[in-house]
Amino acid sequence: MTKSTPSLLSNIRIVLVNSYHPGNIGAAARAMKTMGLSELYLVSPEKYPHPEASSRAAGAKNLLESAVVVATFEEAIADCTQVFATTARQEHSYSRPQSSAREVAKWIELHPQEKVAIVFGRERDGLSSDELGLCQHFLYIAGNPSYSVLNMGAAVQIVCYELFNNLFRFSDNEETDSRFSQSGSTATNPEPLLAKQKDLEYFYADLESRLERSGYIRPNQPTDTIKRLRALFDKAEMTAQEVAMLRGVVKSLSRIHENNGD
Amino acid sequence: MTKSTPSLLSNIRIVLVNSYHPGNIGAAARAMKTMGLSELYLVSPEKYPHPEASSRAAGAKNLLESAVVVATFEEAIADCTQVFATTARQEHSYSRPQSSAREVAKWIELHPQEKVAIVFGRERDGLSSDELGLCQHFLYIAGNPSYSVLNMGAAVQIVCYELFNNLFRFSDNEETDSRFSQSGSTATNPEPLLAKQKDLEYFYADLESRLERSGYIRPNQPTDTIKRLRALFDKAEMTAQEVAMLRGVVKSLSRIHENNGD
Repeated sequence: MTKSTPSLLSNIRIVLVNSYHPGNIGAAARAMKTMGLSELYLVSPEKYPHPEASSRAAGAKNLLESAVVVATFEEAIADCTQVFATTARQEHSYSRPQSSAREVAKWIELHPQEKVAIVFGRERDGLSSDELGLCQHFLYIAGNPSYSVLNMGAAVQIVCYELFNNLFRFSDNEETDSRFSQSGSTATNPEPLLAKQKDLEYFYADLESRLERSGYIRPNQPTDTIKRLRALFDKAEMTAQEVAMLRGVVKSLSRIHENNGD
Repeated sequence: MTKSTPSLLSNIRIVLVNSYHPGNIGAAARAMKTMGLSELYLVSPEKYPHPEASSRAAGAKNLLESAVVVATFEEAIADCTQVFATTARQEHSYSRPQSSAREVAKWIELHPQEKVAIVFGRERDGLSSDELGLCQHFLYIAGNPSYSVLNMGAAVQIVCYELFNNLFRFSDNEETDSRFSQSGSTATNPEPLLAKQKDLEYFYADLESRLERSGYIRPNQPTDTIKRLRALFDKAEMTAQEVAMLRGVVKSLSRIHENNGD
């Protein structure tokens, strides 16, 4: 993320309401940072600041330091234009839209100008009905219907993961690009070239001839062995280097004296 | 899930290697249960059982109670046919496939008969290179490239969330509990097609020993050969039959008299 390409992630505020365990606040900060979010609001946390929060934040202590502590939920969302209440249960009481984290990410993408709050309620009681009344949307985390009691930090982690994976866009910054290439190869390390057909055929012919000499297959007699070996190696989509290595292995194995061979 | 349609989630084992903080083990158990997973293996945990593990597990204490504690990583994956090593960093050292959690879920969906291990390494050091060598696949959790230090419980939560959301299917059976029931699934599960880890290890050990005898690699001297051969065969996702065939091929090649071998 470079300054020249402001991320949609910076439009998102995470709001924790009346958190009871300071450890959860630290875990939430860490979860946010691992997924590129940074704006944290705390509504009347029970114990904060607290060593347990700092400890669980690990390398995300800077997020705690810049967190905004407010007295009321209204203050936390005053300047936001869309407020999502997170829930792991199906909510039937309100006729509000319920969306998955992925759908919320899509919404944010389609509304890049909006300031979004994503709200996590109290560990035990969630949000009050008055607080829910201030939210436009439910963000529903689908999980085990018979045990949906997500830890708060874990819920923040899932939501931030979905937001990052749906909203983060690679910048033109080369450094970021190469570090983050999904293909596992960097610009300076192009994909290895697959083996040429003629080298593969040479390998198979050599292997077949050695297997005939060893008695594993009989000369001039139809057998599935080579077909099955080909199928196996086809699945591996071997590189030229790998075929060369296999040829060396086969050749070397054949050199073992028969008395030592077993 | 009815007995005739065992959940794909029950094919998945979560393996935590040498976890340092018992709280993380509890958090992992809770994360699993919220997403309908239940099979937990612990490889030599530093402190376990531990009150902090039970406390963080909350309503998932039954998962802790049924967790299997083993001494070595090999034991934890011996009967699995596909092993995924979780990482939040790009891995460059081997040409193993790297997949997102969603892609891994897709793989599991396409291979419903396979027993899968998803492995989480030590909090600070991750997995050793020897341990990584026993894994066929990397499961890559995409996140902030400048701070990818996910808490272990949080990483388990993300992975389990993706697995649940991609693999869980509501059955026609109304009763929730039976959907997650593990019992009876083995009887109706078809045999895995892929080779078991212990059979793969036997094959590699045999191959290595023969390559040492043949002089292709030197005993007790670090070499990339076996790693590169493993990476090649990992790509092939070999069946039990194929591994048996390869063992026959290797054994047979070794029988050729050295004078005829080239």
